[in-house]
Amino acid sequence: MTDWKNPPRLFIPGPVLVKDDVLKQLARPTLGHRGKEYAQLHAETVDMLKKLLFTGQNVFISTSSASGIWEAAIRNCVAPDETVLCTMCGAFSDKWASVAKSCGRNVEELKVEWGRAVTPELIDEKLASGKYAAVTIVYNETSTGLTNPAYDISKMMREKYPDVLVFVDAVSAMIGLPMHFDELGWDVAFASVQKAFAIPPGLAVAVVSDRALEKAANVPNRGYYFDFVKWAKSAEKSQTLVTPNIPHIMALNYQCHKLIDEGIENVWNRHKQMGELVRGWAKEKLGLFCEEKYASNTLTAVKNTRGINIAETIKALQEKHNTIFGNGYGKLKEQTFRIAHMGDITLDDLKELLAWIDEETS
Amino acid sequence: MTDWKNPPRLFIPGPVLVKDDVLKQLARPTLGHRGKEYAQLHAETVDMLKKLLFTGQNVFISTSSASGIWEAAIRNCVAPDETVLCTMCGAFSDKWASVAKSCGRNVEELKVEWGRAVTPELIDEKLASGKYAAVTIVYNETSTGLTNPAYDISKMMREKYPDVLVFVDAVSAMIGLPMHFDELGWDVAFASVQKAFAIPPGLAVAVVSDRALEKAANVPNRGYYFDFVKWAKSAEKSQTLVTPNIPHIMALNYQCHKLIDEGIENVWNRHKQMGELVRGWAKEKLGLFCEEKYASNTLTAVKNTRGINIAETIKALQEKHNTIFGNGYGKLKEQTFRIAHMGDITLDDLKELLAWIDEETS
Repeated sequence: MTDWKNPPRLFIPGPVLVKDDVLKQLARPTLGHRGKEYAQLHAETVDMLKKLLFTGQNVFISTSSASGIWEAAIRNCVAPDETVLCTMCGAFSDKWASVAKSCGRNVEELKVEWGRAVTPELIDEKLASGKYAAVTIVYNETSTGLTNPAYDISKMMREKYPDVLVFVDAVSAMIGLPMHFDELGWDVAFASVQKAFAIPPGLAVAVVSDRALEKAANVPNRGYYFDFVKWAKSAEKSQTLVTPNIPHIMALNYQCHKLIDEGIENVWNRHKQMGELVRGWAKEKLGLFCEEKYASNTLTAVKNTRGINIAETIKALQEKHNTIFGNGYGKLKEQTFRIAHMGDITLDDLKELLAWIDEETS
Repeated sequence: MTDWKNPPRLFIPGPVLVKDDVLKQLARPTLGHRGKEYAQLHAETVDMLKKLLFTGQNVFISTSSASGIWEAAIRNCVAPDETVLCTMCGAFSDKWASVAKSCGRNVEELKVEWGRAVTPELIDEKLASGKYAAVTIVYNETSTGLTNPAYDISKMMREKYPDVLVFVDAVSAMIGLPMHFDELGWDVAFASVQKAFAIPPGLAVAVVSDRALEKAANVPNRGYYFDFVKWAKSAEKSQTLVTPNIPHIMALNYQCHKLIDEGIENVWNRHKQMGELVRGWAKEKLGLFCEEKYASNTLTAVKNTRGINIAETIKALQEKHNTIFGNGYGKLKEQTFRIAHMGDITLDDLKELLAWIDEETS
């Protein structure tokens, strides 16, 4: 019987498993958001995020899911008469293009087949026309388990198209994968906290370059809730424009302390090890959905080469072990399934899960 | 020394005091937002909200503060060539007008002095021109402690201007003050949960009429994050468009159960009693900022008739009792101060606070 008070242990690619010590942070007494206690919490948290994301520029905390920042990047930094190039390689990068259209902007699509990467060469070909103000890239496509070569793309863009703004959806990448924001020359990058930060959903982190802020100041009708210019003004006082989601910020503060103590390179390496474990298993037992060189270290999309009934397998695991993993996303349902290996999930957690899947499908 | 982990007990008009049993709900294990557990939580919560708000129409849960719905109401339900009449009687109703402008809409302002109410007569005078598509009203103006005669306004509008949409900021009103959404003929009404729901900030509740939804379907460039049409489609499956703030929805579920058990009329009455207590004290010791007939039952703005140093008084209370109340908002700082009496605050809590203020200022 369905009981939301006794939910399954999560290996879906977000929300991911949250440890009890993290959950407890959400239950701390709340604060006045214009008081000195909040400013202290905010400043501490933003300082740690800047270290973890290698930026000296603007780190904002948004009371929204990351999809709010899809919209914010477009509405703030692309003028109504400009064109944005949306690279598309899966459900989430596709959705970002549709969000850009819903903001009334001119969108040109650069599509590759789901499971393939967006390469510097493909982007270069498009940008050569000179007609784009910005490019959207999904660093790690959660629907296909693919990591785009974001570093190579960024290098090409800095060299050949330094004036084109770079917007990066880092939803299932941030913290789990390297992200040297300033060095990469990115303009907007963001993630929700229910992925590699290992916090329940309800908050997003956005990094915005100084030049993106300057650009925003000249874009009309930016609205209010996601207005980067107003955000920056509030951030000067270690506040947010609107009343923020304080419990989640407390949990974020807690997780940032842990990440800094561990060392971010070690965190990336831990994700790499988890990725290797799950990929090794997938290759042995089934297959990988995307080319191995682009396979993600935060989640794996397994190719269902043996015609396993995935929905039934997930159901069985929930019944026997109160544990679930993810079916394929959208049109990839039953053709693939997805296992998250990010945040506070451990190698031991994954070994247990994989053994259960083996048991159910062998 | 400032320590966000040991914050003061809150009598500011939001975030308000949250009881420990409510805080604990935030720390429950999290859910997959596309799974049956989440749908169960969502459906249960929305059903209760519909009862509490007397509506058979659309109740949405938004991962945002209520200010997101300021923008959503305008962007969804006012076409770019239409004009919205913004009634303004304090900091928050003023801000809503500026938000409407930031969305590129035509705004006409109906201003009354801070501390005065917006009356049906004033609105009638404006609407007689026939040029407005919608009116914005703040039910309870948190900056001035004033409750606008929302029922009388609604009656007048239903009778004389049934085609004009009615948008109501119910931020510090919802739950604390009567709200018969369908009967009032409102189109959009919303609140954050850190007011009378007595939950930490991070979530908003929005009620949207069927006709507002129909209107939205024909308004272009609504964006994505706050798109009512997309929200309604997800709500059919007891889901939200974007990954929702699940911990807060769990706490909201818990609070709705308690409110339904108490009976919403009893809840309103409890707020009335708290309002009477604080107003009685204010009239005896200092004064009320607004006319008593409009004075709010969820917070009181006290007129500083004795030239008390309010900032110093708040500081003293924090030092001695780790408790704070609110200074006046914006230009009303030091001229007024504000005491919240909503949510899970009790008469005993208030008596203790008032005694401490007396002690400090006599």
